[in-house]
Amino acid sequence: MKKGDETKRKILSLGFELASKLGLECLTIGALAKAANMSKSGLFGHFQSKENLQLQVMSHAGEVFNEGVVIPALMTRAGIPRVRKIMENWMQWTQDLSGGCIFVSAAAEYSDRPGLVRAFIREQQDEWIKCLSKIAESAVRVGEFRADTDCEQFAFELYALILGFFLYQSSLEYNGARQLMFKSFDRLIDSYKSDH
Amino acid sequence: MKKGDETKRKILSLGFELASKLGLECLTIGALAKAANMSKSGLFGHFQSKENLQLQVMSHAGEVFNEGVVIPALMTRAGIPRVRKIMENWMQWTQDLSGGCIFVSAAAEYSDRPGLVRAFIREQQDEWIKCLSKIAESAVRVGEFRADTDCEQFAFELYALILGFFLYQSSLEYNGARQLMFKSFDRLIDSYKSDH
Repeated sequence: MKKGDETKRKILSLGFELASKLGLECLTIGALAKAANMSKSGLFGHFQSKENLQLQVMSHAGEVFNEGVVIPALMTRAGIPRVRKIMENWMQWTQDLSGGCIFVSAAAEYSDRPGLVRAFIREQQDEWIKCLSKIAESAVRVGEFRADTDCEQFAFELYALILGFFLYQSSLEYNGARQLMFKSFDRLIDSYKSDH
Repeated sequence: MKKGDETKRKILSLGFELASKLGLECLTIGALAKAANMSKSGLFGHFQSKENLQLQVMSHAGEVFNEGVVIPALMTRAGIPRVRKIMENWMQWTQDLSGGCIFVSAAAEYSDRPGLVRAFIREQQDEWIKCLSKIAESAVRVGEFRADTDCEQFAFELYALILGFFLYQSSLEYNGARQLMFKSFDRLIDSYKSDH
């Protein structure tokens, strides 16, 4: 990695942290410059505009998510083991963030703010939902999920459980959130599992 | 209702709207005074502090939720009809809000800010989760849910589906969010329904 690339990745990583904590809309070049202990004009040279900074931070968050959640799951055998791996990695992801899942909070924050940032967030989310569907499809292909599985429905239900887990665990510090999550996940898998 | 009470209710209602849109932490006496077109000192007389304003707005939100979601469901026959009514009213509630569900967003916003506001939010959420459990218990009592139903588990799963619906519908404007929600709800009910 070139030195310039490394610096930029560090800045993006800090921007990602800041946006997770304060909300994406609060991520300005000025705020990031302060947090990074850099000059505003130096950061401006990297990003040119607040919007561009936000887009690059969301793109960076997507890469971190891919590396930590998606790729290790895709390296796991297709079928229920892969589905379980995605769930476990995703739970870990929601645990590692200080201010909540940036994708979910940014999607809510930008729901009534049309523009490039919202379009980018929605595309990321659409891709993620499609990815979950495909993981279910691969479980159908290897015969572990029933042939009539509605994979889009499965994706919705797994996403919903993760949101429930995140609310109970991180926002409410509810006793037994993990157990509730694991039991619901098992019930979800059972409801789609093929009989043979 | 006395005139003073009516004025206060109007202010709380505006505070509720503002907090839903901007986040509870942004709800200050100054911001609300501006929105209500009142003097800061006049509002200060009503609330004394930002914290007290926030507590009263959350309490007001709880009342609106009870009136719109909980009470009409409790007036519906116990069992699956009551469970369905809660789900429908709750979906409607998430639809009517401009900036998202204030309970969920405030819980996330205050997760790492200990204090009276966080304690109040968590108590409201605990009560709500218990209420969902009780509605499931009443479905067991009338014989529509299986006797071995884990009602706390049911509450978690219904809450999760609502969060999923809210993300898909309001944040992502995902096509077919309502259908996904209704189908998942039917699958949830089926999984707990007694055979007789």
